[in-house]
Amino acid sequence: MIPKRLDGNAVARAIKHELGRRLAALDRRPGLAVVLLKAGAASRKYAESKVKACREMGMDCTVHDFTDDLRPDVLHRRVRSLASDPGLHGLFVEHPLPADVDPIALYACIPAEKDVEGISYENLGRLLLGRPAMVASTAAACMAILDHYEVPIARRHAVVVGRSNIVGKPLWALLVARDATVTTCHSKTPDLAAETSRADILVVSVGHSRLIGREHVREGAIVVDVGINFEGGKMVGDVDFDAVHDRVSAITPVPGGVGPVTTAMLLSNLVETTTRQVALQRT
Amino acid sequence: MIPKRLDGNAVARAIKHELGRRLAALDRRPGLAVVLLKAGAASRKYAESKVKACREMGMDCTVHDFTDDLRPDVLHRRVRSLASDPGLHGLFVEHPLPADVDPIALYACIPAEKDVEGISYENLGRLLLGRPAMVASTAAACMAILDHYEVPIARRHAVVVGRSNIVGKPLWALLVARDATVTTCHSKTPDLAAETSRADILVVSVGHSRLIGREHVREGAIVVDVGINFEGGKMVGDVDFDAVHDRVSAITPVPGGVGPVTTAMLLSNLVETTTRQVALQRT
Repeated sequence: MIPKRLDGNAVARAIKHELGRRLAALDRRPGLAVVLLKAGAASRKYAESKVKACREMGMDCTVHDFTDDLRPDVLHRRVRSLASDPGLHGLFVEHPLPADVDPIALYACIPAEKDVEGISYENLGRLLLGRPAMVASTAAACMAILDHYEVPIARRHAVVVGRSNIVGKPLWALLVARDATVTTCHSKTPDLAAETSRADILVVSVGHSRLIGREHVREGAIVVDVGINFEGGKMVGDVDFDAVHDRVSAITPVPGGVGPVTTAMLLSNLVETTTRQVALQRT
Repeated sequence: MIPKRLDGNAVARAIKHELGRRLAALDRRPGLAVVLLKAGAASRKYAESKVKACREMGMDCTVHDFTDDLRPDVLHRRVRSLASDPGLHGLFVEHPLPADVDPIALYACIPAEKDVEGISYENLGRLLLGRPAMVASTAAACMAILDHYEVPIARRHAVVVGRSNIVGKPLWALLVARDATVTTCHSKTPDLAAETSRADILVVSVGHSRLIGREHVREGAIVVDVGINFEGGKMVGDVDFDAVHDRVSAITPVPGGVGPVTTAMLLSNLVETTTRQVALQRT
């Protein structure tokens, strides 16, 4: 029985419980580097929540504020230097990026084996070909929630709203690999409701508060709301929770839905990259 | 005005004309290696058509029959050895592969800079992130046909039937990058007609003769038929051409549709890898 409210905190706890067992078996303390490129309270808050989450699991997390100089040569040198530190097993760049930073050139400075966000060519290529890959934590979190609550995916119609490199694109690959029929929608989709209202599983990741209303969801749909927006200091998702709540069969709340699971998946990715680096050093 | 019959031979001629100009500017004779892993007349015929196409353009093409020993270590050594030949600028493995050959392990033996089929992790990752990439020739051919006939893609609903590594997956990325809303269908889609009949642009690549009938297409759709099947010696596509012909606004025939354009795109990819290798040698 799938509960109406898909509780991300419960999923995160289950993932962290499993992580604890993997960490105990690993004779290395994983270390994460979080890179800040955007000044402001929001980015810093996100980074600090990662520090806290890592500490709670007995992992290291350092925050590197590179906002003072975003010239490509300086930034890339700094990121490469971080990546070469053998005590760091994963590099995470806080999103969104400033407009004047080229994301792809930046990602190219992160080696695939420390790429905890699954953003390197190699990890994306592996994902597309269905091979073991590091997958962006937000996309992985959506799948983890569906799997935790045993939502059937095969033969279902999934609609993904958003085509970002760290959510919409990897999620398409993950859902198709699990035998869902998948529709990708985005800002250039002329009639969004016509598409989303056909979804058995609807995932929304656009960063537009309450974009999805009652007319966008079908009766009985499963809704995963990736959006994090602020309305007068209050955190809301991309889905108008109250408007759709009695129409859908299950939905992730914001806050307390995808967010905590994303953090848990990032930690999981970090344990995975650390495990692989330890194994490589032994061979 | 988009003609009813999307003539692949005309598109291929236009591509080859442009290629001739690029070849003239390139002081190197491109060389393609075609690897045969499956015995039989069909594979050999496809390989020979590539030899012919290359020769007509003043390029080299050699066929390497590795069917005698498909053990991974032998096969991978042979492919790596081919790839290291500086006179060869592209490697192409004829599909379909025998069931006992692991495609991904095989692809890993082809360096990204000679990957004319866009199957390496790097090229797939680049494609997903919207960077310049070698793209599988069949997927690229579908786009070339749409572009040649100036079929609008942005804001249209495209449905892709098939999720192969060399057609369905790259095509999803190409269409989404061009602002289409894209639905991916496959063998586990429960009601195929319900999805395909919503398509403004329908691309079918499953290898199942006449899978798509009249009930699968909407009035006025643009249909690209990638399928190559044989019925009693006659080549037919995945779409029942006669059944849908008067309902759609345009359709690629089989033969004479995607096939010749795929060959032209492979030649185009070869010129591209050659150009890059020449540039690299100069630096």
